[in-house]
Amino acid sequence: MERLFVCDLRVGATITQHFLVKGKHQRQKKTGEPFLAFLLADRTGEITGNLWEGLEEAERTIQPGDFVRVRAFVTSYQGSPQLNIQGMQRLKPEEVETEEFLASTCKDVEEMMGYLRRTAGSLKDPNLRALLKNFLEDEAFVTAFKRSPAAKGLHHVFLGGLLEHTSSVVRICEGILTQYEGIHRDLLLAGAILHDVGKIEELGFEKGVLDYTDRGRLLGHIVIGSEMVRERIRSLANFPPRLELELLHILISHHGEHAWGSPKRPKTIEALLVHYVEDLDAKVAAFQDFMRHSPDPFRLHWTSYHKVFERYLYLRDAEEQSLEGSEKDAPR
Amino acid sequence: MERLFVCDLRVGATITQHFLVKGKHQRQKKTGEPFLAFLLADRTGEITGNLWEGLEEAERTIQPGDFVRVRAFVTSYQGSPQLNIQGMQRLKPEEVETEEFLASTCKDVEEMMGYLRRTAGSLKDPNLRALLKNFLEDEAFVTAFKRSPAAKGLHHVFLGGLLEHTSSVVRICEGILTQYEGIHRDLLLAGAILHDVGKIEELGFEKGVLDYTDRGRLLGHIVIGSEMVRERIRSLANFPPRLELELLHILISHHGEHAWGSPKRPKTIEALLVHYVEDLDAKVAAFQDFMRHSPDPFRLHWTSYHKVFERYLYLRDAEEQSLEGSEKDAPR
Amino acid sequence: MERLFVCDLRVGATITQHFLVKGKHQRQKKTGEPFLAFLLADRTGEITGNLWEGLEEAERTIQPGDFVRVRAFVTSYQGSPQLNIQGMQRLKPEEVETEEFLASTCKDVEEMMGYLRRTAGSLKDPNLRALLKNFLEDEAFVTAFKRSPAAKGLHHVFLGGLLEHTSSVVRICEGILTQYEGIHRDLLLAGAILHDVGKIEELGFEKGVLDYTDRGRLLGHIVIGSEMVRERIRSLANFPPRLELELLHILISHHGEHAWGSPKRPKTIEALLVHYVEDLDAKVAAFQDFMRHSPDPFRLHWTSYHKVFERYLYLRDAEEQSLEGSEKDAPR
Amino acid sequence: MERLFVCDLRVGATITQHFLVKGKHQRQKKTGEPFLAFLLADRTGEITGNLWEGLEEAERTIQPGDFVRVRAFVTSYQGSPQLNIQGMQRLKPEEVETEEFLASTCKDVEEMMGYLRRTAGSLKDPNLRALLKNFLEDEAFVTAFKRSPAAKGLHHVFLGGLLEHTSSVVRICEGILTQYEGIHRDLLLAGAILHDVGKIEELGFEKGVLDYTDRGRLLGHIVIGSEMVRERIRSLANFPPRLELELLHILISHHGEHAWGSPKRPKTIEALLVHYVEDLDAKVAAFQDFMRHSPDPFRLHWTSYHKVFERYLYLRDAEEQSLEGSEKDAPR
Amino acid sequence: MERLFVCDLRVGATITQHFLVKGKHQRQKKTGEPFLAFLLADRTGEITGNLWEGLEEAERTIQPGDFVRVRAFVTSYQGSPQLNIQGMQRLKPEEVETEEFLASTCKDVEEMMGYLRRTAGSLKDPNLRALLKNFLEDEAFVTAFKRSPAAKGLHHVFLGGLLEHTSSVVRICEGILTQYEGIHRDLLLAGAILHDVGKIEELGFEKGVLDYTDRGRLLGHIVIGSEMVRERIRSLANFPPRLELELLHILISHHGEHAWGSPKRPKTIEALLVHYVEDLDAKVAAFQDFMRHSPDPFRLHWTSYHKVFERYLYLRDAEEQSLEGSEKDAPR
Amino acid sequence: MERLFVCDLRVGATITQHFLVKGKHQRQKKTGEPFLAFLLADRTGEITGNLWEGLEEAERTIQPGDFVRVRAFVTSYQGSPQLNIQGMQRLKPEEVETEEFLASTCKDVEEMMGYLRRTAGSLKDPNLRALLKNFLEDEAFVTAFKRSPAAKGLHHVFLGGLLEHTSSVVRICEGILTQYEGIHRDLLLAGAILHDVGKIEELGFEKGVLDYTDRGRLLGHIVIGSEMVRERIRSLANFPPRLELELLHILISHHGEHAWGSPKRPKTIEALLVHYVEDLDAKVAAFQDFMRHSPDPFRLHWTSYHKVFERYLYLRDAEEQSLEGSEKDAPR
Repeated sequence: MERLFVCDLRVGATITQHFLVKGKHQRQKKTGEPFLAFLLADRTGEITGNLWEGLEEAERTIQPGDFVRVRAFVTSYQGSPQLNIQGMQRLKPEEVETEEFLASTCKDVEEMMGYLRRTAGSLKDPNLRALLKNFLEDEAFVTAFKRSPAAKGLHHVFLGGLLEHTSSVVRICEGILTQYEGIHRDLLLAGAILHDVGKIEELGFEKGVLDYTDRGRLLGHIVIGSEMVRERIRSLANFPPRLELELLHILISHHGEHAWGSPKRPKTIEALLVHYVEDLDAKVAAFQDFMRHSPDPFRLHWTSYHKVFERYLYLRDAEEQSLEGSEKDAPR
Repeated sequence: MERLFVCDLRVGATITQHFLVKGKHQRQKKTGEPFLAFLLADRTGEITGNLWEGLEEAERTIQPGDFVRVRAFVTSYQGSPQLNIQGMQRLKPEEVETEEFLASTCKDVEEMMGYLRRTAGSLKDPNLRALLKNFLEDEAFVTAFKRSPAAKGLHHVFLGGLLEHTSSVVRICEGILTQYEGIHRDLLLAGAILHDVGKIEELGFEKGVLDYTDRGRLLGHIVIGSEMVRERIRSLANFPPRLELELLHILISHHGEHAWGSPKRPKTIEALLVHYVEDLDAKVAAFQDFMRHSPDPFRLHWTSYHKVFERYLYLRDAEEQSLEGSEKDAPR
Repeated sequence: MERLFVCDLRVGATITQHFLVKGKHQRQKKTGEPFLAFLLADRTGEITGNLWEGLEEAERTIQPGDFVRVRAFVTSYQGSPQLNIQGMQRLKPEEVETEEFLASTCKDVEEMMGYLRRTAGSLKDPNLRALLKNFLEDEAFVTAFKRSPAAKGLHHVFLGGLLEHTSSVVRICEGILTQYEGIHRDLLLAGAILHDVGKIEELGFEKGVLDYTDRGRLLGHIVIGSEMVRERIRSLANFPPRLELELLHILISHHGEHAWGSPKRPKTIEALLVHYVEDLDAKVAAFQDFMRHSPDPFRLHWTSYHKVFERYLYLRDAEEQSLEGSEKDAPR
Repeated sequence: MERLFVCDLRVGATITQHFLVKGKHQRQKKTGEPFLAFLLADRTGEITGNLWEGLEEAERTIQPGDFVRVRAFVTSYQGSPQLNIQGMQRLKPEEVETEEFLASTCKDVEEMMGYLRRTAGSLKDPNLRALLKNFLEDEAFVTAFKRSPAAKGLHHVFLGGLLEHTSSVVRICEGILTQYEGIHRDLLLAGAILHDVGKIEELGFEKGVLDYTDRGRLLGHIVIGSEMVRERIRSLANFPPRLELELLHILISHHGEHAWGSPKRPKTIEALLVHYVEDLDAKVAAFQDFMRHSPDPFRLHWTSYHKVFERYLYLRDAEEQSLEGSEKDAPR
Repeated sequence: MERLFVCDLRVGATITQHFLVKGKHQRQKKTGEPFLAFLLADRTGEITGNLWEGLEEAERTIQPGDFVRVRAFVTSYQGSPQLNIQGMQRLKPEEVETEEFLASTCKDVEEMMGYLRRTAGSLKDPNLRALLKNFLEDEAFVTAFKRSPAAKGLHHVFLGGLLEHTSSVVRICEGILTQYEGIHRDLLLAGAILHDVGKIEELGFEKGVLDYTDRGRLLGHIVIGSEMVRERIRSLANFPPRLELELLHILISHHGEHAWGSPKRPKTIEALLVHYVEDLDAKVAAFQDFMRHSPDPFRLHWTSYHKVFERYLYLRDAEEQSLEGSEKDAPR
Repeated sequence: MERLFVCDLRVGATITQHFLVKGKHQRQKKTGEPFLAFLLADRTGEITGNLWEGLEEAERTIQPGDFVRVRAFVTSYQGSPQLNIQGMQRLKPEEVETEEFLASTCKDVEEMMGYLRRTAGSLKDPNLRALLKNFLEDEAFVTAFKRSPAAKGLHHVFLGGLLEHTSSVVRICEGILTQYEGIHRDLLLAGAILHDVGKIEELGFEKGVLDYTDRGRLLGHIVIGSEMVRERIRSLANFPPRLELELLHILISHHGEHAWGSPKRPKTIEALLVHYVEDLDAKVAAFQDFMRHSPDPFRLHWTSYHKVFERYLYLRDAEEQSLEGSEKDAPR
């Protein structure tokens, strides 16, 4: 039976599928009869489900944060679907498919990986090319890289977010490259590709929740990433020390300022560019995401208040929007 | 007689040409005979010139900051060329050609103007197209715009600097535009073209010195520029009010933060992009300029200390540089 | 039937009057009978009202934020008055009298306008006098100016707040003027009168709620105000350019620092004075308002915590207060 | 013989009077003959003086920072007056009259003291009146208070500066007082009079140079001043504790923010007002002083760059100035 | 009957003892019968108690914040103990023993006082020794000092906290003293002992709640403490003025920076050391307290988010902890 | 011939020894005869030396920054010793003994190293003990560690400064350790010993001048040091991952705040302690150094202005100082 996501559930259906338990409360019917009300979720939304039998065992074995297999009948309560649970069991870790519970990039993962590999292959410097190959043809790395989000809270907070962010940064760097003289193309693109690799160890999932890992909290992706790069450089023969230094400098300085967590600030054009472009890409993604998901219900043309950016964002009318993107679609 | 710039003067030549007076000092020969020592300059450098006759009149009529016509013989003093002045007179304002005294963009001014006009012509929105045409086909505006520097001290401090900065910002915006969905192309490009127009009234030259104008110091280019745009919009029929609002918002917010002088911070993606790209372009230009002109004479691989950026910048070896830009030249 | 404000409602009365709907909830009596509970408000307070009939239509046609005409009987519930609603209909926009729903200045609006007009008339500089007359005798402007609050959240948040703030700033400037030599009286007073005029377009009311307008959020009252002044100056003949520059500078710089939203900081004594005095007046008003409305119920002598000022304010004893203001009343 | 100040010295005069030694250098005539060149100063300016005889003793006994009696003939050197010193001796401390070497207020000291005393006498609160009397009728205090400058570097840096600043703050507070309801007049005025009394111990003169005292550097005038007030309060019977607390709070908080050196920020209206007014008065004085003394020699309409305020100040044309102050002089 | 603290109450017991009333709510049984539900507390925790009779009087006479004597039977409700109140009366102030309601230091108060007295007695400077004796043998001071907490919210928030903090600071200073040459031992230790004495008047208890006193809010412990020291110095004969100055400087500057509330920053090594050590001790105590009380229930190895420090703290495993402190216990 | 340092040179001596060339200027005697004036230095001071023969070769072969062997006669000029140079040649790199030109710690290097080794040996955790042994018994590391300064400009700017700073930090940590419960002794001491190891690669000497290395400028000692620790950990078998994480966290976070260059802030007590103690030790050393070397020549009791700390430091009288350190020497 194919999975029906929460957003697709229709009253009357009978389902058997997996959910993340986000809440559990003991309640009483008006008759005084007790039941357990669960808040269940997958990556498309949340739904309430009530369990009427086997309460004691469920109370004991199932906790918020667990993944469960639920057998249920979809009913309606105050106009919304609700589950009438016939049975539920905790899943073993190997039964959980994280993708069912976490949002993913809407872009084509293989297309983006292909783009990065082609870009890496286009480098003229054999050392940087070898280094990137070492990363991008290492299956374990690629698997992690393709799944990693790019951040916990502000932008690209979904599976594949890191890949989406990275390939966007590389594309923009490629475009800017041709505007200036004297840019070291290979160094810039290698730095753009690798700038955030530390995030695959900084962020992780546990019980369906995205969070910083212990390494992430104690060391951070800047230090982790520079270690990852150094280790692979050591495994290559004769990587030029100055090239290593400049490449590591891009990673170390890509937050731009001490106050933003970089132990060093950019001292080369390439480091400066990677900092600006990755900051810009993160901000644009955060703006777009917030504009999509948080319009102010009471105020036309505006989102609700964005606490990190400390401002409301302006939303253009649909008709005005019609000119957007026309460039891309228009025949020339 | 064609102008010989200071950097081209050779011992033995006789010249008659224009200089900016940067200093004037009364001196005495060992014999006790008085003379006037002038520090003279054009846009390529400075040279000392001594005047032995007509001291009284020169003392009275010529002051530092004046432009003068000098008739002189080029001699040598301690190995450097020096002028033995036969005669000098103050120029009338209309005789001064500022270009002789101020550095200029090395790029092709007409090519850059053409690019901006073509971009403006490519807009689909008739109102924005008309507004840009109103600016870019107004000869007085264009003359000023082509000569204006983009700043007083940090980046693009030369004739044509504003044009160079603007066209670079527009080109990068065009490149980035295709990376994201939902960008209002016409608004972004119009905002990029107009973001700094206020600078033509914020900065000026007096006595060969680039400085802020009174309006520049009291109002600043953000307020001046938004007034310029509003005035031209009023001269057009039926410019849509929301479009005007969004366009002005790009100008108003292009410094990005209150602390950097913007009375409002970006609240649309287009304003966010113009802010980031123009900041990036200014920083890259400032880095490149400093790398070119301020290598640390005592320390290989480094510039001297940059007081605004509060750091030393790293200079790559020439051999390493060889890979730079290769992308552009390489046959594909 | 004269309006009875919420604070005047007495149990037993029957009323027919206007309210702002602040909330609407479907409820059930113990008997299971459904009803609609409304939270209704005017500018003096809030009251609950229950509707028992015509639920379906009310549910459909009346939303929070609407203004309604209510026919009701005042009952008592748990010691507080409550409305037993007999009927309610949504008002047409033209039926709403905002003054019923928004707090107003307690001061005499005409007296304050008169003071500003007299002050404007006392100026010796004919240009500034003409400019102020252009504003203060423009009925549309005056109407808006008299109703505008001076801010959204911190001080003078009521109809007439802008006028109250402005006339207070002008009075204090007049007093300070005589303490220093070399102040340009006319410029200072014109700047004081006009410093916040942009607020009449920055702030607005919609559905009974005071909020920033779109122009307010995207441009801000500093830019809007300087445009308003410039437009009127253009309509006058031969306004001296330097005078315009200095006047606009006062508006532009009146927040004092970049970080507080001024694109330029004060560079004349007059601009410095307007900045200090308007900041002081806003802070005094905010302190007084908070002292009046937010005493700490658990702590004698103190207000509750003020989140913007990040402090508790001290409240003097009544006896100590007795000396306050005695100066004003005392015969001399 | 009446003192001739440096600014009044004319070539040809013979003088015997006191100077501060600011520099001493051994020099040689072209003939090889040694002499001592002194830089001498009084409060109106500096002059060079050469000593040709008694070099050895002068070398040994007179050092920069000393005050000396000089007998000399005024000659001319390169167009400026110079002293040909016939004799000089170090003054004993009791012979030095500091007023000759330090700038003083141009205002009438007794008039200002009288104003403060009258204001103090007008208070209705007997405790505050007694406290102020205790200060203002204590001869030692008054002597020190009348001579003290108000600051070391930015504003009112002259004898009597503290009195000038204090009486200006009190006058402005009196004016503002009538604009607001609920101000405790006596507390406000007492706080205004006493807010900076600690400065008489914070600042001092040594060897003709104004500087912080040791107490000033280690404790500061806020702590010193609050101690001074507390000591005098203790000497009065039955001063109400809450009144003492509020008065001390005004002193403690008058810098307004922690970062500006106040251990507490204003929590009463009176403390808020004293903070704003004294800050405003200091800034106005600093602006006016800089405008008077530091016009940019190369730029009409502007002062040179003010390093503390980080800006250039605008200077109005004389004709524009003509309207200034007209208010004060005009018959009413 | 010995007091049973909330954490020790067992179902079935009958008690008669004191509580702090933290809440009071009128409720109804299902039968409609009214009762009063109280939230009662002592220093070990909170418990709910229901009163069924004498509602009217209790409603009138007992308010949150009052201390009461309660006679009750301990029952169980949903698995937790609850009080069935038979009777309750408000306590007179003199009946309240604050220690029953406020947490206390776990360390030996007399041992710590003894340590401070011994340290004070070990000073060689007779003036500082006399000053400390004046404090430490003044019973009123000692009583207050022993009870005072060291802060309201972040660290040492319990009875005896100030003593615990002070003796820890003194001990660490003693240890550091021997690491550097040229430290004035007596001054450092006297400064360490006295640095926070102002807190005994800055913080107080009212109605069982720890809070800043009025003096604390308006003057702060830095100013209060320096007054306390000055008063006692005045009562001693011939205390050297420079020593007083240096000692007061330690108190005045012990917050280290203006922004942290010190009107002066450390200018001697001794002041620098007291600042660092007292800051370190406060932070360590705050870290340890948060680690003990706020582990993240959902995340092994971490505390929940600390809002003041803006971070999560890491919690070591118990086994890893086993090495901790081993040094202290180990035989050497 | 034993080296005579500049501070020991006496008029009349003939010397042959090494100097660092800090300046070179061509001058003329009154007779017009040219000579070369050199500014020569060793670690104790500077001296002028004039060369009268072989000018051309010296001009060509000797530059500022070179080390030279000088044969000279010590003469006197204006009361100070000066060198009359008979001959000078540039040294080969291997002839230069840096110690002659750079200041060194006054403490016993072997004693400090011994202390660190004993402390390392006292650790109970076998992994940390092995790691420290790996560092402290590696001759190359120890050689570099013993010579390294601890900073470029503010504190411990001399050979052995890093060792002096490190052993001071370890000693203080040992002392503090016993004041708190629950500190992981081994982790704290290992972190204290290793916190700054990256400085041996961050700082270097070239041409007798201490400066940051390229790695130091581009990566910084925090990143370099954590790499050094990781590499040695990898060379050990089975180092526990959590222990590595906590140790690296101490290095990464030891600057305490992002703005001070730490990519992560302390999240364990041990990291917090290392941060505070190493900051304190650096500040104390900087204070003491400045007090020793920069007394204000014109102001008793004070140093000149310290630009980094932005304050003057107070200097106690010698008699007052007499009590200092007495504790250490006194018999107990």
